[in-house]
Amino acid sequence: MLSVWKTKPGEGLEIKETDVPKIKDDEVLVKVKATSICGTDMHIYGWDNWAQKRIGKNLPYIFGHEVAGEVVEAGKNVKAVSVGDHVSAETHISCSHCFQCKTGKEHICENVKILGVDVNGTFAEYLALPHRNAWVNDKKIPHWIASVQEPLGNAVHTVFDGEVAGKTVTIFGMGPIGVCAVGLCKIAGAEKIIALDQHEGRLKFGKEFGADVLINSASADVKKEIMDATNGHGADVFLEMAGAESAMKDGLATLRPGGRASILGVFPKPFEIDVTNDIVFKGITMNGINGRKMFDTWYKTKALLPKMKLERLITHKFKLSEIENGFDVLKKREGMKVVLEP
Amino acid sequence: MLSVWKTKPGEGLEIKETDVPKIKDDEVLVKVKATSICGTDMHIYGWDNWAQKRIGKNLPYIFGHEVAGEVVEAGKNVKAVSVGDHVSAETHISCSHCFQCKTGKEHICENVKILGVDVNGTFAEYLALPHRNAWVNDKKIPHWIASVQEPLGNAVHTVFDGEVAGKTVTIFGMGPIGVCAVGLCKIAGAEKIIALDQHEGRLKFGKEFGADVLINSASADVKKEIMDATNGHGADVFLEMAGAESAMKDGLATLRPGGRASILGVFPKPFEIDVTNDIVFKGITMNGINGRKMFDTWYKTKALLPKMKLERLITHKFKLSEIENGFDVLKKREGMKVVLEP
Amino acid sequence: MLSVWKTKPGEGLEIKETDVPKIKDDEVLVKVKATSICGTDMHIYGWDNWAQKRIGKNLPYIFGHEVAGEVVEAGKNVKAVSVGDHVSAETHISCSHCFQCKTGKEHICENVKILGVDVNGTFAEYLALPHRNAWVNDKKIPHWIASVQEPLGNAVHTVFDGEVAGKTVTIFGMGPIGVCAVGLCKIAGAEKIIALDQHEGRLKFGKEFGADVLINSASADVKKEIMDATNGHGADVFLEMAGAESAMKDGLATLRPGGRASILGVFPKPFEIDVTNDIVFKGITMNGINGRKMFDTWYKTKALLPKMKLERLITHKFKLSEIENGFDVLKKREGMKVVLEP
Amino acid sequence: MLSVWKTKPGEGLEIKETDVPKIKDDEVLVKVKATSICGTDMHIYGWDNWAQKRIGKNLPYIFGHEVAGEVVEAGKNVKAVSVGDHVSAETHISCSHCFQCKTGKEHICENVKILGVDVNGTFAEYLALPHRNAWVNDKKIPHWIASVQEPLGNAVHTVFDGEVAGKTVTIFGMGPIGVCAVGLCKIAGAEKIIALDQHEGRLKFGKEFGADVLINSASADVKKEIMDATNGHGADVFLEMAGAESAMKDGLATLRPGGRASILGVFPKPFEIDVTNDIVFKGITMNGINGRKMFDTWYKTKALLPKMKLERLITHKFKLSEIENGFDVLKKREGMKVVLEP
Repeated sequence: MLSVWKTKPGEGLEIKETDVPKIKDDEVLVKVKATSICGTDMHIYGWDNWAQKRIGKNLPYIFGHEVAGEVVEAGKNVKAVSVGDHVSAETHISCSHCFQCKTGKEHICENVKILGVDVNGTFAEYLALPHRNAWVNDKKIPHWIASVQEPLGNAVHTVFDGEVAGKTVTIFGMGPIGVCAVGLCKIAGAEKIIALDQHEGRLKFGKEFGADVLINSASADVKKEIMDATNGHGADVFLEMAGAESAMKDGLATLRPGGRASILGVFPKPFEIDVTNDIVFKGITMNGINGRKMFDTWYKTKALLPKMKLERLITHKFKLSEIENGFDVLKKREGMKVVLEP
Repeated sequence: MLSVWKTKPGEGLEIKETDVPKIKDDEVLVKVKATSICGTDMHIYGWDNWAQKRIGKNLPYIFGHEVAGEVVEAGKNVKAVSVGDHVSAETHISCSHCFQCKTGKEHICENVKILGVDVNGTFAEYLALPHRNAWVNDKKIPHWIASVQEPLGNAVHTVFDGEVAGKTVTIFGMGPIGVCAVGLCKIAGAEKIIALDQHEGRLKFGKEFGADVLINSASADVKKEIMDATNGHGADVFLEMAGAESAMKDGLATLRPGGRASILGVFPKPFEIDVTNDIVFKGITMNGINGRKMFDTWYKTKALLPKMKLERLITHKFKLSEIENGFDVLKKREGMKVVLEP
Repeated sequence: MLSVWKTKPGEGLEIKETDVPKIKDDEVLVKVKATSICGTDMHIYGWDNWAQKRIGKNLPYIFGHEVAGEVVEAGKNVKAVSVGDHVSAETHISCSHCFQCKTGKEHICENVKILGVDVNGTFAEYLALPHRNAWVNDKKIPHWIASVQEPLGNAVHTVFDGEVAGKTVTIFGMGPIGVCAVGLCKIAGAEKIIALDQHEGRLKFGKEFGADVLINSASADVKKEIMDATNGHGADVFLEMAGAESAMKDGLATLRPGGRASILGVFPKPFEIDVTNDIVFKGITMNGINGRKMFDTWYKTKALLPKMKLERLITHKFKLSEIENGFDVLKKREGMKVVLEP
Repeated sequence: MLSVWKTKPGEGLEIKETDVPKIKDDEVLVKVKATSICGTDMHIYGWDNWAQKRIGKNLPYIFGHEVAGEVVEAGKNVKAVSVGDHVSAETHISCSHCFQCKTGKEHICENVKILGVDVNGTFAEYLALPHRNAWVNDKKIPHWIASVQEPLGNAVHTVFDGEVAGKTVTIFGMGPIGVCAVGLCKIAGAEKIIALDQHEGRLKFGKEFGADVLINSASADVKKEIMDATNGHGADVFLEMAGAESAMKDGLATLRPGGRASILGVFPKPFEIDVTNDIVFKGITMNGINGRKMFDTWYKTKALLPKMKLERLITHKFKLSEIENGFDVLKKREGMKVVLEP
């Protein structure tokens, strides 16, 4: 089968012809129909600090983790998924026996392995997937859309980490997940959605998905604009989806006392926070968001997907063999979401 | 009446003879029977950066805010408090019409005034107090103990910000509030209480109130000791009551994925936090804690007070006129809680 | 002023010319611009068992409680409301000093008095209203719509008693509050809204406000239809807004294990419930809903009102002097919401 | 091996010598060291209506479900449990793929099978147990105590279904689970524990485990006594552990507005509830409690077990071959908890 490997340190990837993987008793074999490129894949492709530290010891391996496909074989212990099912993959492969796994928090398993990071991933024609990680899709959803459920799930997890209906929400970072968050807040009855990014092109997506206020954080006085848009009280909810220090600071500074901050962004390094004024005195709640709740988030995602115009987010489709084109488009920030079809 | 004033910038205080305050229609006049010294009073007495910025414009005024006494007069609009009642004071005087006040979060009122900080306080023979801030005490509780309900309330608010029974809890800072937190965790069925401070004398109070593990953070490898005490998993709950950067970092680093961090400490300045690893990837919840919930925390405090040996925390009593002695004892860290009796 | 009285037992009302009420220091005088008729007013007008028991001792008095108007005078202790403000009334006049009032639950105050039930109400040209019960409206909202915020608030309280986005919801009773609940669930991203009533005319309103499935409970096999519409699993959320024994039973029986039942309906008498099978074994949560959270619900209502087509619910307008016409229309079930304008 | 069967309709049981069960790949073989008798076993033994309906189609089979023992063999897919481990059994064997199972609520699995009810149970020398249902015990806990963790877990689930510290709690039914609930409330800092039962002998156990107020519901004016003990306000929390209609009615009637009712009891048949006055107007929350949260409850139970004097609840020990003696003792209400040792 065709498969895309990270074989050695440094920027780039390698396309190879390899054997279709053999599945274990508790795995299914998925014929990949669509696999999309995530920010994490950009880090791996570009081989930045994070990738070197996190992935270095795993080379060589197949990367990629957003996927939709069809089950073509099922191991003998597999339950609840059948040959012919259309599936996506929950990318957190949890141990199922640590405290978190046994108390409904598998998404923060102590021993988690991540698809396309710790084990072979989805940039390939076939994928061996633990049956517990196979999420059965409605066959009416095209694969190229279903593949994007995984990052949509990140947005669902973050947005619905608390109340949204009737609330004013700031969303920092109009990448695909941020734009999904805008759409979800709109669907869920937010009173006012304030979207921020440094790129006008990305803000346009925010607008299209329902943002009420757009702020270009490259040029605007962010704090002033948010406070003006909230009658001087601050926002009820702050969603960090930029992974940027300035976003974190501005977001916390403009959160109303008693507000909720849900942080999904991954930051390149530690940075200063004014804990006293921004967290303690205001009595806010800050939640770290990792992955998707398994599988509460997936059920919600499935239910809300038909209300989203997710296809508008998928700006490019390529063949899997043309994967380098996909990375090019994203490096130039010309695209939002790139889907590859084997 | 005798009253204790902060009249001008710089360390120190001034004792004066002044008129008994006149009460308004919605106030009660409290004859002060006991008033205790809080860390905030130390800042005001010592005139540090915080005091200069926060208090500078309020001078001259009477400071102090922890109190117990008897109502001797009631304004004509006063309900639910009567002459003869024994009362303590909730020190947050809220506006009652901002969003927070109207949604059950008066303790983080946007327009709050604080007793002894923004308005005349309790280091005096008499106190004019808004009737809504008067908390009626059981007459069986001596005034010198009842006065300490206010900081105990901070501990109640912090500890019961989430579940405690059957949990492992780290508590950083064995000042009076930290020690109260230890006692409350014990009363509430915590599985293991890990108490930290840099002073052996304070750790002894932690032990006396029920701590299972004591760690001297001045000398120990804090992270290692906490991880060892939690079988390598980290604590379920982290209570920051030290207002120290190192406490915050160690507490977050040793919190288990999905854990709860409740931050009461006030920090001298912003500092670096590893948001990605300590908050996002671990999926923790961090809550800022300010004051006491009005008045949920007071009801809980009243209910739990009889189970606490609060008198053991009160190391010194002085006459109000000897207040300088109280500040001396605390500056030398010879005492835990100092109560003044007019 | 013109005012509408319940003067004596038995069906009917009496229109009188009386003095404009004198306000107290903590009250405002509201010039009534619109007042709408609620189911409770129907009970009082018709003098059923409930009315006899609940109202008997209050006669004679002015009834009515849904209102919008303009403040024309303010008592000297009034804060945060001014002459000229457009206001609606929160109808629960709470004592502000019982446990519930002091812990953020004023809506279930132990000593509550209800406007138009325990004290003079809104079917009049002027209304004396405690300032804490005056909710300031956006002047862009017409009074005849603003008046209906009170029952809309009941729906907001019930719907947002838990999660709605991505959930399947059964709503029993397509009176004005039930229809509002349908609209709110739609706005808040419910996956599927199943609306039930015995009257086709009312179901049509449910459909117009966004119901996905309509079930006429007078003729249908309710349990079967709900289970069919939920793939045999049952609904995630059950909202009782009919006050009918059969609704309660069918709603509970078709609630999925772990589901939420929020009960707003008022039932004529106690009735049998299969606690073991419908509550215990399924591990459901059932919440009683009374009034509106003060004032969390009002903020949410204000935020969501512009997204609702509330005007579509108001089928009739009459002059206050024609109030009997309003009751006629409602008795014949020809109208949904009737607004009276003095 | 020796094993105890329900072979046919009617009161009684049958002791047989049968083969040690063969385990499947995902099961462990447990050598039973202690197995205790539950109320459910009494129903099965006595063959009442419930048993006839629920068990009829399963005969013949081995009953019993409370157990502690040692793993002597492990199937090849077994993880996280090893030969030599001391274990107890979670008795809900969940399907792991229904909505509830996949969203952290396995205890209310749609396809649950119950040990000793739907499949062969623990009244035997050996038990084949799915590895996911094996809970590893601390070896310092004697088996005869560890066996009782399962009903203790019911109490833990019910008590910690909400806040307890500083609360007033009514507990109806001083069977073993009710007495455990008393002990847990005491450990967790309840302000006042009001224990009710019709038998003085059982109330004594309530007292021993920490109840502050004892009410004999066979003779007392239950409502009056509870209201008196709560200063006329009602209890904050009501735990139904009697499965009695009168308990349910009195418990709801004496619950304070906004209170929490957690219902574990199983009632012989549906009965009347005053939903309007006891649930809706008071705005209470009622939760059905089934089994133990898997496995949040087990972790909490493990943590709290050392604080309980659970041995005081175990009034009788017999050999497994003398099981009829155990049923005798319980039928005569001479014992609380009976443990059998093979």
